[in-house]
Amino acid sequence: MPDITPVLDFLSCRTPQAWTDRATEDIPTLLLDHAGLELKAAQQALTLMNRYAGRANLLTKMSRLAREELRHFERVTGILKKRDISYRPLSASRYFGQLHAEIRDAEPDKLIDTLIVGAIIEARSCERFFSLLPALQTSDPELAALYESLLESEARHFTDYLDLADQAAGTSTTTRAAELLNLEAGLISAPDSRLRFHSGVPG
Amino acid sequence: MPDITPVLDFLSCRTPQAWTDRATEDIPTLLLDHAGLELKAAQQALTLMNRYAGRANLLTKMSRLAREELRHFERVTGILKKRDISYRPLSASRYFGQLHAEIRDAEPDKLIDTLIVGAIIEARSCERFFSLLPALQTSDPELAALYESLLESEARHFTDYLDLADQAAGTSTTTRAAELLNLEAGLISAPDSRLRFHSGVPG
Repeated sequence: MPDITPVLDFLSCRTPQAWTDRATEDIPTLLLDHAGLELKAAQQALTLMNRYAGRANLLTKMSRLAREELRHFERVTGILKKRDISYRPLSASRYFGQLHAEIRDAEPDKLIDTLIVGAIIEARSCERFFSLLPALQTSDPELAALYESLLESEARHFTDYLDLADQAAGTSTTTRAAELLNLEAGLISAPDSRLRFHSGVPG
Repeated sequence: MPDITPVLDFLSCRTPQAWTDRATEDIPTLLLDHAGLELKAAQQALTLMNRYAGRANLLTKMSRLAREELRHFERVTGILKKRDISYRPLSASRYFGQLHAEIRDAEPDKLIDTLIVGAIIEARSCERFFSLLPALQTSDPELAALYESLLESEARHFTDYLDLADQAAGTSTTTRAAELLNLEAGLISAPDSRLRFHSGVPG
């Protein structure tokens, strides 16, 4: 098991146990949402590659990240197929819309915020896999094995995004990250309308 | 060297020697355009994955294809970096716009045509690498080695696209492919305004 202490230290809150309990009761929704998120993450990486084509370091890191996310997409859809569940995109949770709404319009703030939000999403994904592991190791060992293997790359993507944010800012982005993490903690902690991988507790 | 006879048999014309001569005189343009094309190919695959999310076979094939295109992007930008050339997107050649303009609007024709156009682009890329090899083996062995290694995957992508087109049509797409290949041969053979990887002979 990789050490995900930096991820847990970065986030402002842990996932409520109530979310984990609900999520393990509806694995098909979790899998479908997860598959769609991997695809969206790859797309987001390509969007950044196009928008910031002059940043060589960003291009390389995002290209590798996109490849990994697509590999994960294939692994999750492979599990869906084994379970006779047809992949379909689910409606997005409020999480992404509300985080993206905080991204400032003018450059370089737009890039910095986008990268910090990327780091937050990767960190939360990592933390959610970690939170789901104990229950899944008993109830769904196949999925537990997948999530355990994904922890490491999510933790690496989190670091990649944060490093790129610091590079774009030319300084540490800790203060801005704290503002966005505060908002993110609210989205994780407050009741939500439906279960998604990044939702609050469905109420 | 992989056997690319199926690719050469599929296309309606070979690349004119005049294009090859001009291309080998301007390797930086070729590399920059090539890098951008790999990125565009990955994006196109993701666009299809979103648009046709219910087609499991398409999802898997396009996800793998996108990963390979991104790996190629990284290899080409790696060569650009070694040569102190900063990556930047170049203006597109007429090739893509004119091929995409032929794609019919209504489904399933839209999907079928998009996949056939994908097959044609992969086949032409493969043929162009093959056409450039003899000159590059003498003048630029590093690039010749890259192109030779890409031949195989381009040929595979060509087959993937064509198989998906036949699946989408529920029958052979040979007749429609012939129409689009006829147009494509014109774009390859007619003089063009500037050198690009898929341009006609710059005149």
